[in-house]
Amino acid sequence: MAESVRARLSELRREFHRHPEPGWCEFRTTARLVEELRAIGVDELAVGPEAYDPDDRMAVPPEHRVETWYDRARDHGVDDDLLEQMAGGNTGVVAVLDRGEGPTVGLRVDIDGLFIEESDDGDHLPAAEGFRSETGETMHACGHDAHMTWGLATVEAIKDSEFEGRLVAFFQPAEEVSGGGCPMAESQYAEGLDYLFAAHVGLDHPTGEVVAGIVRPLAMCHVEVTIEGTSAHAGKAPQDGDNAIQALGTAIGNVYGIPRHADGMTRVNVGRVEGGTASNIIAEGVEAIAEARGETTALMEYAKDELTKRFETAAEMHGCEADVTVASESPRADSDSELVDVVADIARETGGIDTVVPTADFGASEDATFLMQRVQRDGGLATYLIVGTDHPTSHHTPTFDVDERSLEPGVEVLTNSILAVAEDGP
Amino acid sequence: MAESVRARLSELRREFHRHPEPGWCEFRTTARLVEELRAIGVDELAVGPEAYDPDDRMAVPPEHRVETWYDRARDHGVDDDLLEQMAGGNTGVVAVLDRGEGPTVGLRVDIDGLFIEESDDGDHLPAAEGFRSETGETMHACGHDAHMTWGLATVEAIKDSEFEGRLVAFFQPAEEVSGGGCPMAESQYAEGLDYLFAAHVGLDHPTGEVVAGIVRPLAMCHVEVTIEGTSAHAGKAPQDGDNAIQALGTAIGNVYGIPRHADGMTRVNVGRVEGGTASNIIAEGVEAIAEARGETTALMEYAKDELTKRFETAAEMHGCEADVTVASESPRADSDSELVDVVADIARETGGIDTVVPTADFGASEDATFLMQRVQRDGGLATYLIVGTDHPTSHHTPTFDVDERSLEPGVEVLTNSILAVAEDGP
Amino acid sequence: MAESVRARLSELRREFHRHPEPGWCEFRTTARLVEELRAIGVDELAVGPEAYDPDDRMAVPPEHRVETWYDRARDHGVDDDLLEQMAGGNTGVVAVLDRGEGPTVGLRVDIDGLFIEESDDGDHLPAAEGFRSETGETMHACGHDAHMTWGLATVEAIKDSEFEGRLVAFFQPAEEVSGGGCPMAESQYAEGLDYLFAAHVGLDHPTGEVVAGIVRPLAMCHVEVTIEGTSAHAGKAPQDGDNAIQALGTAIGNVYGIPRHADGMTRVNVGRVEGGTASNIIAEGVEAIAEARGETTALMEYAKDELTKRFETAAEMHGCEADVTVASESPRADSDSELVDVVADIARETGGIDTVVPTADFGASEDATFLMQRVQRDGGLATYLIVGTDHPTSHHTPTFDVDERSLEPGVEVLTNSILAVAEDGP
Amino acid sequence: MAESVRARLSELRREFHRHPEPGWCEFRTTARLVEELRAIGVDELAVGPEAYDPDDRMAVPPEHRVETWYDRARDHGVDDDLLEQMAGGNTGVVAVLDRGEGPTVGLRVDIDGLFIEESDDGDHLPAAEGFRSETGETMHACGHDAHMTWGLATVEAIKDSEFEGRLVAFFQPAEEVSGGGCPMAESQYAEGLDYLFAAHVGLDHPTGEVVAGIVRPLAMCHVEVTIEGTSAHAGKAPQDGDNAIQALGTAIGNVYGIPRHADGMTRVNVGRVEGGTASNIIAEGVEAIAEARGETTALMEYAKDELTKRFETAAEMHGCEADVTVASESPRADSDSELVDVVADIARETGGIDTVVPTADFGASEDATFLMQRVQRDGGLATYLIVGTDHPTSHHTPTFDVDERSLEPGVEVLTNSILAVAEDGP
Repeated sequence: MAESVRARLSELRREFHRHPEPGWCEFRTTARLVEELRAIGVDELAVGPEAYDPDDRMAVPPEHRVETWYDRARDHGVDDDLLEQMAGGNTGVVAVLDRGEGPTVGLRVDIDGLFIEESDDGDHLPAAEGFRSETGETMHACGHDAHMTWGLATVEAIKDSEFEGRLVAFFQPAEEVSGGGCPMAESQYAEGLDYLFAAHVGLDHPTGEVVAGIVRPLAMCHVEVTIEGTSAHAGKAPQDGDNAIQALGTAIGNVYGIPRHADGMTRVNVGRVEGGTASNIIAEGVEAIAEARGETTALMEYAKDELTKRFETAAEMHGCEADVTVASESPRADSDSELVDVVADIARETGGIDTVVPTADFGASEDATFLMQRVQRDGGLATYLIVGTDHPTSHHTPTFDVDERSLEPGVEVLTNSILAVAEDGP
Repeated sequence: MAESVRARLSELRREFHRHPEPGWCEFRTTARLVEELRAIGVDELAVGPEAYDPDDRMAVPPEHRVETWYDRARDHGVDDDLLEQMAGGNTGVVAVLDRGEGPTVGLRVDIDGLFIEESDDGDHLPAAEGFRSETGETMHACGHDAHMTWGLATVEAIKDSEFEGRLVAFFQPAEEVSGGGCPMAESQYAEGLDYLFAAHVGLDHPTGEVVAGIVRPLAMCHVEVTIEGTSAHAGKAPQDGDNAIQALGTAIGNVYGIPRHADGMTRVNVGRVEGGTASNIIAEGVEAIAEARGETTALMEYAKDELTKRFETAAEMHGCEADVTVASESPRADSDSELVDVVADIARETGGIDTVVPTADFGASEDATFLMQRVQRDGGLATYLIVGTDHPTSHHTPTFDVDERSLEPGVEVLTNSILAVAEDGP
Repeated sequence: MAESVRARLSELRREFHRHPEPGWCEFRTTARLVEELRAIGVDELAVGPEAYDPDDRMAVPPEHRVETWYDRARDHGVDDDLLEQMAGGNTGVVAVLDRGEGPTVGLRVDIDGLFIEESDDGDHLPAAEGFRSETGETMHACGHDAHMTWGLATVEAIKDSEFEGRLVAFFQPAEEVSGGGCPMAESQYAEGLDYLFAAHVGLDHPTGEVVAGIVRPLAMCHVEVTIEGTSAHAGKAPQDGDNAIQALGTAIGNVYGIPRHADGMTRVNVGRVEGGTASNIIAEGVEAIAEARGETTALMEYAKDELTKRFETAAEMHGCEADVTVASESPRADSDSELVDVVADIARETGGIDTVVPTADFGASEDATFLMQRVQRDGGLATYLIVGTDHPTSHHTPTFDVDERSLEPGVEVLTNSILAVAEDGP
Repeated sequence: MAESVRARLSELRREFHRHPEPGWCEFRTTARLVEELRAIGVDELAVGPEAYDPDDRMAVPPEHRVETWYDRARDHGVDDDLLEQMAGGNTGVVAVLDRGEGPTVGLRVDIDGLFIEESDDGDHLPAAEGFRSETGETMHACGHDAHMTWGLATVEAIKDSEFEGRLVAFFQPAEEVSGGGCPMAESQYAEGLDYLFAAHVGLDHPTGEVVAGIVRPLAMCHVEVTIEGTSAHAGKAPQDGDNAIQALGTAIGNVYGIPRHADGMTRVNVGRVEGGTASNIIAEGVEAIAEARGETTALMEYAKDELTKRFETAAEMHGCEADVTVASESPRADSDSELVDVVADIARETGGIDTVVPTADFGASEDATFLMQRVQRDGGLATYLIVGTDHPTSHHTPTFDVDERSLEPGVEVLTNSILAVAEDGP
């Protein structure tokens, strides 16, 4: 039998780091999680459609992309039965420990990577030490490799403890596109959770610091835009075209100019564009991916509506038509102070932790808020905690890295917080 | 032996139509041309690097794209030796007939297709009659399938005639990206041409009309643009990004706003854009393909310089850097009136031709001007003639088609014009 | 009695130069013209509403501006009766000589200045020699001061000649805004004109050159745009504003990006903008003045329609409303070749003229085309001729100036052309 | 002698409302304040340059505008000596009461109006009851009419009370353009202030509510922008122009697109634009007034720097030059909690006040922060309090109005807070 997860924290994290997969394409990742969870020995293991209703998934990528990663996983030797169960992009796994009478405690970690080409600079530790992403196009640039490692080690530690109650560990796909939070929150496994712990590494907090809860995560929506125009020969008949690229240019300029809102923070971004065919053809069509965020759900809606209007009128201006579709959304949900206190108390007693911050402004978006909202609505308590790590550059950049000294404290804080609420309540 | 080309005009054109290949990727196309030219029996046949210096090529696509089409051609059973000769994108062929004393006459046709997905509408003849493009992504939407058919049939007809002199037929790749004109013009085969005929089908002239020469083709340049910025998390730290997509938006808006010039026509187009990764990441980079044209070379330079400045300052505005590289250029060259008269006289006597227009404004760009300029500089005469065809929609659109009644008159006009100058001079 | 006009060409031109008045505000200018015409002694003198129907005027400025110039003229001692006749902006004068049997010949000159602050640089002759504009804000930067001088001297010369027939001299207001051509063309004085001569100085033709006619003047329209939004406090509630300045910014960028048209030249310009109130208020409204031109009336209509659409959709994008009103338009009309020949013959015999160009592309707009079109429609002949002048900088710039050596040849060419058609017909 | 101010609150406010004057042009306003202060009988009265160093003034308007309002004031019969003292735009007055031993207490109210044309709608009370602005172009749309009324009544009430100490009342000009705060803060009268009370009406707080202090006022800067290009004839030579209006359009679009900042609120606005001359001239120059704000001074600097860069690169893109000059700035300063408590306690006991909010987010900018910062730096305490008023529409809109039921409670809260700190300290 394999050595315990807790003895292999760095090794495991580096392995996950080498194989980042994008949202709903975490075939190899899920298979490795299943393998480790089976080794740990859990009471219930629900993969993909066993864990959630596939119809609840958001931001599922186009079929051909899912297939590419599916094939890649098969080529890497992933078990066929497991693969088949995840066919069509039904990745992720929920693991359950049932240990007698006691509260039901949820633990949520996310498992997807990002479309960022990882740096191969000698100063970038994963490159220097040989665990850089092997895919060439994706990267664990947000620390989900560490999250999965925490998740496995925590399940293992709880299993080995005197814990009484039920532990439900959600290994959630597609967090980066806000696609996996909703199906997990709608799942039968989300029923009756008395407590929920979600965790993130880093976020500009240094190694040795724990933030026990967050306030003000941004509500977010992710939209897909298509602009359709009419192609024409750019030299012979420029006036006959309805120029989708010109419409796009106008839309971009104006989307970033959506007025700031006095009620609070908003964010907008056009993160990807692609369109047109050749230099001498007026572009018939373009596609864009964009997002809107807000300090409250209402502010996000404001930004989304304005963004939509700007794309539509820019298209109209150039004789084109724009279609703006919401691919996924996540609400705002704040940490409960009772649970924040539990985590803070535990963190203060944890080795390697020298600073404990009760709560911090989150300032970004997270679809963990779906699960948090579900738990809070059902009368439970939820928190989203941050375990600091020294990261050389920002999240979502090619040279992002995790300080592995934050792996063990993360496991301890999660494990002991779960044990604390199971024993004493908050 | 195969039936004569002239008996198979429609069949041949439709076969070419089914297999459009983009510039410098015309592997299958060149192979078919070689096959037919061998069947006709020419005196000299120069494929790829035998015909021109590969270093003179412009607008060569990235290696992986060339390879995709190379592999596709191999899968279609193209001869390995021929393929190897064209490896790396050295497509096209020059055929020579040497028939005793007499002038050297050039004939130039182009052979590439466009990245346009052909219509599968029942009203679109190629779809209805089963010769729609089989590639799924490219299309002969500018009539080069007809041009090649003319070229083969004309070589055959000259061979079968009393022609005395030398006929050099240039089957030129990559016209659509202005990439093949320069190497053909620099080729040894372009030396000593007394006359040059280049021909195009359609261009808004109906079936039954011939335009014997063109004036004012636009000088053109094709540029590739890269904008490099800095990625950042769009929710957590939007101010840390240098937004390449925002720079692109500003550049697009301003490129189309380059002032009209009082000295004559200019054209600008941003024909393709692609960049960014995900909705929540400030885009680190984008790529664009654009072009500038002008009624004179000076006007094209004006438009190109302004376009470059706009991309560069838009990038600077957003903390990015833009690199604008000229991929290919073509000069302006007008038809010589002496040769225009020859073609006009021949056309008036040609069956199926009821209208003859001496010259027309061209209004577009053509890299045939490289060969024309070369011939004119060396003391020869050149014309670019148009054989009208009823085309249901504009060139470069998914429902473009050629009226096949224009195939035979095209062959006759070309053949008889060549015979006329060989006999009598202009 | 005053010395003859012909003896005072430079003096008169410089006096007009010192007092430029904008369109429909040429009160002082008209009064001086009347004074000189009375001194010459004409048979009929029609001022303002006597010459045309005020309702036919286009591009009349707002009342308060007309009043400002009205008051200024009164302060300069312009005769009260004359002023009253012109009240409300009915400036300009038509003078008639009736001299027995013969053809009716029209002569048209324009009289308005531009809103350009004249250079006070020592190198600028009007500044150096003390006849710079005295208004501080307007300038004869297009040579209408020379045109008026020509007009007066030609009337005088015809009067002193053996001319038989009827001469109608139109001193037309508001050419720069295309406002005066229409009412003059609709006037009773435009009835029955057998010939019409209109003249312009310079236009990049040097001293000593005459262009006997023009082809391809651009059709033009002048539009006034209002964008109405909603003001709000830019710090407290930016989201409550509908930002008219932001809408304007988007419109400007896109108006200049109207696609070039393959059928010929188009022009667009946003020439003046004004709006908003203070830095901390989201702008409630802006006004803009713009124009569209085309090589044909259809091309002008294309540019005008696109310009209108761009302003309207840009406004909509920002929650505003745009109103685009056509203030004035002028058609295209080309010179008649028979009259071009007359002028060319005369010019060749005129002292000081060493180059005669039959016709030139005009490339700009002129509301003389209204009168030309009227005459041509009624069966008469018209030409618009250019008398070259060395001008140091372009028309419509602060250092534009006229070479006064072109004054006398201009008078001679006009006078002798009129005499020629009166005697011999074209 | 006049009836007491406190008996004429509404009458006085309405009189101020009828005569709004813009910043540094409050000649009539200052004269009326002086008149009332003399009637009350204060110990010291410093008008304009007696109160501050004119060189410290910011955002002084152009001379001709100052003169227009100066002349208007003279025409309204303002005393010549007083006017002369204010010549050149040195408006405003400081009044001092010296009443034995005790602390020095400052009171600051602002006195300028805005360039907004007041509504004449029958539903707008000032229009219905006949006290609408008489200037036609300016308006007290931010309640400074109420502030002056409070200020006078408070001085009167303190004078009539048992107050011991020194009261310095600053009637500050040019708040709307952040122009008057700095000179007042630099003034000798700002020395040695132990306490400072500044007050504002409304700001979305209803009648009956008092906010005892503010936090997070935005740091602000006000900039003036000039773009210089080259004029040209838009029809004849569009390519010769360097189009200042096109540069402006690009700048506007991009200024509003300055990235949101994760550290906190920012604001940008281009509030006024003017440029160009005529529709047929490429614009040689434009002027714009803009502002940048930030939740901290650093954030304001970020927005200001980005705004400057966008104007400069947009100008460069179009061959123009942009000059961006900071006309005025104000820092961030928060209310001191000790003084907030004093005001809150007083407010709770004040008739007509039913809700007391300790502090509120300010969200806008205020140059009272200069005086607050000065006092706090010197060891004193400062607060900026808000007396709610039901206002039908937002501040800075044409239908803004003050509920006059808030006049008397405002006076009471200010008076009793001053008395409280004089007696007991905070």
